Amino acid sequence: MSEKKVRIGLLGTGRIGQVHAISIAENPNVELTYVADVFIEGAKKLAAQYGGKVTADPAEVFASGEVDAVVVASPTPTHVDLISAAIDAGVHVLCEKPIDLDIARVDSLRAKANAAKTIVALGFNRRFDQQFNEIHARVAAGEIGNLEQLTIISRDPGPAGKDYLEVSGGIFRDMTIHDFDMARFFVPEIVEVYAAGANTFSEDIKSLGDYDSAVVTLRGSKNELVSITNSRHAAYGYDQRLEAFGSKGALLATNVSPTTVKLYTNEIVEARKPYLELFLERYAFSYRRELALFIEGIQTGKNVNPTFEDGRAALVLADAATESAKTGKAVKVDLSK
Amino acid sequence: MSEKKVRIGLLGTGRIGQVHAISIAENPNVELTYVADVFIEGAKKLAAQYGGKVTADPAEVFASGEVDAVVVASPTPTHVDLISAAIDAGVHVLCEKPIDLDIARVDSLRAKANAAKTIVALGFNRRFDQQFNEIHARVAAGEIGNLEQLTIISRDPGPAGKDYLEVSGGIFRDMTIHDFDMARFFVPEIVEVYAAGANTFSEDIKSLGDYDSAVVTLRGSKNELVSITNSRHAAYGYDQRLEAFGSKGALLATNVSPTTVKLYTNEIVEARKPYLELFLERYAFSYRRELALFIEGIQTGKNVNPTFEDGRAALVLADAATESAKTGKAVKVDLSK
Amino acid sequence: MSEKKVRIGLLGTGRIGQVHAISIAENPNVELTYVADVFIEGAKKLAAQYGGKVTADPAEVFASGEVDAVVVASPTPTHVDLISAAIDAGVHVLCEKPIDLDIARVDSLRAKANAAKTIVALGFNRRFDQQFNEIHARVAAGEIGNLEQLTIISRDPGPAGKDYLEVSGGIFRDMTIHDFDMARFFVPEIVEVYAAGANTFSEDIKSLGDYDSAVVTLRGSKNELVSITNSRHAAYGYDQRLEAFGSKGALLATNVSPTTVKLYTNEIVEARKPYLELFLERYAFSYRRELALFIEGIQTGKNVNPTFEDGRAALVLADAATESAKTGKAVKVDLSK
Amino acid sequence: MSEKKVRIGLLGTGRIGQVHAISIAENPNVELTYVADVFIEGAKKLAAQYGGKVTADPAEVFASGEVDAVVVASPTPTHVDLISAAIDAGVHVLCEKPIDLDIARVDSLRAKANAAKTIVALGFNRRFDQQFNEIHARVAAGEIGNLEQLTIISRDPGPAGKDYLEVSGGIFRDMTIHDFDMARFFVPEIVEVYAAGANTFSEDIKSLGDYDSAVVTLRGSKNELVSITNSRHAAYGYDQRLEAFGSKGALLATNVSPTTVKLYTNEIVEARKPYLELFLERYAFSYRRELALFIEGIQTGKNVNPTFEDGRAALVLADAATESAKTGKAVKVDLSK
Repeated sequence: MSEKKVRIGLLGTGRIGQVHAISIAENPNVELTYVADVFIEGAKKLAAQYGGKVTADPAEVFASGEVDAVVVASPTPTHVDLISAAIDAGVHVLCEKPIDLDIARVDSLRAKANAAKTIVALGFNRRFDQQFNEIHARVAAGEIGNLEQLTIISRDPGPAGKDYLEVSGGIFRDMTIHDFDMARFFVPEIVEVYAAGANTFSEDIKSLGDYDSAVVTLRGSKNELVSITNSRHAAYGYDQRLEAFGSKGALLATNVSPTTVKLYTNEIVEARKPYLELFLERYAFSYRRELALFIEGIQTGKNVNPTFEDGRAALVLADAATESAKTGKAVKVDLSK
Repeated sequence: MSEKKVRIGLLGTGRIGQVHAISIAENPNVELTYVADVFIEGAKKLAAQYGGKVTADPAEVFASGEVDAVVVASPTPTHVDLISAAIDAGVHVLCEKPIDLDIARVDSLRAKANAAKTIVALGFNRRFDQQFNEIHARVAAGEIGNLEQLTIISRDPGPAGKDYLEVSGGIFRDMTIHDFDMARFFVPEIVEVYAAGANTFSEDIKSLGDYDSAVVTLRGSKNELVSITNSRHAAYGYDQRLEAFGSKGALLATNVSPTTVKLYTNEIVEARKPYLELFLERYAFSYRRELALFIEGIQTGKNVNPTFEDGRAALVLADAATESAKTGKAVKVDLSK
Repeated sequence: MSEKKVRIGLLGTGRIGQVHAISIAENPNVELTYVADVFIEGAKKLAAQYGGKVTADPAEVFASGEVDAVVVASPTPTHVDLISAAIDAGVHVLCEKPIDLDIARVDSLRAKANAAKTIVALGFNRRFDQQFNEIHARVAAGEIGNLEQLTIISRDPGPAGKDYLEVSGGIFRDMTIHDFDMARFFVPEIVEVYAAGANTFSEDIKSLGDYDSAVVTLRGSKNELVSITNSRHAAYGYDQRLEAFGSKGALLATNVSPTTVKLYTNEIVEARKPYLELFLERYAFSYRRELALFIEGIQTGKNVNPTFEDGRAALVLADAATESAKTGKAVKVDLSK
Repeated sequence: MSEKKVRIGLLGTGRIGQVHAISIAENPNVELTYVADVFIEGAKKLAAQYGGKVTADPAEVFASGEVDAVVVASPTPTHVDLISAAIDAGVHVLCEKPIDLDIARVDSLRAKANAAKTIVALGFNRRFDQQFNEIHARVAAGEIGNLEQLTIISRDPGPAGKDYLEVSGGIFRDMTIHDFDMARFFVPEIVEVYAAGANTFSEDIKSLGDYDSAVVTLRGSKNELVSITNSRHAAYGYDQRLEAFGSKGALLATNVSPTTVKLYTNEIVEARKPYLELFLERYAFSYRRELALFIEGIQTGKNVNPTFEDGRAALVLADAATESAKTGKAVKVDLSK
């Protein structure tokens, strides 16, 4: 790229903000010009390491005229306002999922977001994972014929703390939302959602009226069936698999292991060490790629990242799943409306 | 075993009948004394190879006093009457699944079957497959802690002919019924069924009002979630996998391959030949083991094979799935009633 | 086959004799007419189960006129005389490996064996193993281009008892001999042998002046290099792998597992149970196939089993390896002489 | 690390020099202060990207007083002089393998190198590969008991050009030298070398009197047997495997794949894309780790990288292999002398 560097403001310096800071630092086409966090110490620390001016107030970032784009990594309730402010300021925005936990708030921004002249991209990083991306490309290339079924198994190593879970919006809006977007990566037009939630191991989660375990069935407009299996824990590490089944065959992404080494003893053979524990490790590449493509989109004028509509669609599906899990009925959805 | 040989009458000499004939021939504790089939030529051919008297009329077998047990491998509509006749004759019976496609007919025999002094066993051979059996035993031994989720992927290499499909009772009663029984092997008390069916590739199946593809979610009484994925075709061969997920880990049965040989070229690596095509090959061991355990049950007086109630339960679940697929609602079931 | 049954005499009723008895019993084209063993109780027991007359004297078998073929499963020192007697009697013979531990004795029979009108087949059953056979066929079909390298890893679960080891002829003549034949299955014209033996774990074996561990390099006439790695023990079970490497790719046979089930815990993932322990289990199919092909050879007049020359070649290679291990020099061999 | 940055001079800016430049740039404890190459354009280009003064003369680097250490990535014939100059200048040195192709030249530097107060490290990066390193650590931790056998399979995707091959010193000094060092990583005291070379596919290599294919057997002082299999080509990509076999089990490193995605069709199942093609990709991590540990060694005063003696030992083994391949005799070596 011969274009001049894209000036970025990073809004939010928590765990995800730090991930983005690293991606920004590694990207030769980007300059970190601003770091904002109401927790000003966090902003100072990150700026000291990766550069940029510091502020506690995002408004200062938008007003500065020194950013071409912002990455929103602040708490969920701030997302709608920050996306809106970015659009007003004529600044591109990459916002972490979800847009909001309340579909009404999301819809209040919808028209504006879709009419924006600048890029409004949503951070569903898994689309950029090497494995899932490869399957997507090979399915698109017709390698397995017509896509008929998609099986997603997605289990976390262990649940987050109760504090986090309380404001998470429930398993479907917080965890499955990634799988809803993954489903839509392959089958954009989902028309029906059925979800079953269960409480199998966590009293904390149960006490919140939430589920620790779920199985979801989606139907696509071309009769594709998608099966999603979730659990908030998995003894053997982060369990992230995907299987695309088509008329001519299947493509399967197994878990990413930190090693190829296998152990053989008198008790077991072919045994590997458990899978990668943290989602930041597991999806390190996809976070970097997500930012790189966002920057590329700014420079070329062609955004390939998930859009505001993608972010909204995932929430619509999560809401439908939440309702279905309560009523025991499949819920029809029309994402085009 | 020092007991005298068990005298068997084989009723039905089609594809499955022939499988049982081989199991009988290989079992040193068994003697094939009668072979019955209205298609008398089939009976003659089998008897010539494996022994036994020949008749077109099963009643003759029961009246002969020369059988201790019968294996029912005749068409589904004959099953209820033959089980009933076996009970009346004081003869043990191993009947192929399903008992019947009509739950009313099944229920008409229920009290009698459950009160029978002789063994009434149902031919859900997959319980005896080495892989699934091993997982079951290891789950029971507590190796993965508390069972929380069960994932069954079951795809046929290709659909049967339209003639067969027309009288099959539909995908849930004909194909998924095996998976319902497998689910109950691990989670006997299923309380809820949701099913989504789809038409993805077969105009024949669609024209019958049936599905070629399905995803089913079951809930157990202890909040276990079971996910079943079915397709009537799979380019790469018979796809039969099972995954038991528990609080301490998981056990996974991958497909049985005819070979361990892997190919490495400039296009692909680690490639094996497609999986076993035919269910008779894939489940050859389990058919043999099923018969052996039936015989052992007769000799020891302790039946370990699936029972009439198991056969009924699978049909109840299939009926619930059929209803759910139509209504889009999860259907509650109480298998104990 | 519509030919009449081949009448077989089984000479020797030890462990291998019993294996052959089972293969004979399962083969519809064969009738076991005689069982001979100096340990007459062994012969009686086998005959009681599988049929045939009993004798302590093999000569009686040859004189009877009641056998078309014999299977020689008696101790190695008897092999040369029994093959010779079989030829004299005009009886086909399938003799267990090795022909003899003494190349002079083997050579004394060579001309006669090669001139025999009847089949003289050697029991290198591994050629009939499904995996190795498949690789051989695919190499022959040109799937990996020109064969350049062959890697054989062959480890026993544990060493035999000292009594057996004392008369075994040493690791190269007793254990590696199978691998020499396997090498020749792919590269018939071996021209050079280098062997390194080592004592790593067994004082018993060391005290016999034998090795418990060995690495052998063979060179074929077309510059193929063969690497053989042996150990008399392997904690994880019988380790039998083969890798054919060619100009266009490779074919690899991994170990045969009794199960596809994999365990996932917080300590390990993808772990299977150890491999099959006993060579009789591991090579059950190949023993059966070996006998079936011997019988087919008799019926069709076309022998496809390893020949007397194959048996001799393996011993020549074993002798060369024994010499090489002592001298530290590669030993040239000319198997055609 | 709170120590001040280590100032590095990079000598040589070819393919490997560029790899080291990246590792230097990524390491926060290092500053690139000088870049030297007689091909001055190469030096200029690298310095423009990664910093540092430029010179065509390494002597200027040593005289500058502005380097604490040098990385030698220039052609092999310059290595001995540059190591010597580094020692004279009191500068730490990480030198690419081999030290030299002529053992006499290596030995002329030996006493000086071993007496050096500064670190003289050799660039056998594979010791730092994640897989091989893990196996080494687990063997050291006793996980497989006593190490008895080591199997190394090492095949390049394709041969280098004839220009390179002409000055490479032959397969053993150029390619196998990595495997000799890997062998010594596990079995430092090698006492015997046997090598068989072969010409299977390359007329170019043959015309140079070199081999395109080799099998090597090493013996350790504790009777460990090491088997190395090499080829200058592999259709399926870079083939780098290692198997450590011990009294209690085995540890096996399979190839590193760029993807976990597997394809299933009617022709093949479980097929992955070919392995990583280039050694720079395959060993990217190990190159970075090698430099990081070299820097850490400088800062802590404790070198853990391979030493001059390790570099010499690998060449001694390569020479012994070259001799053995010609004479057909195992060659005794004493690396301690």
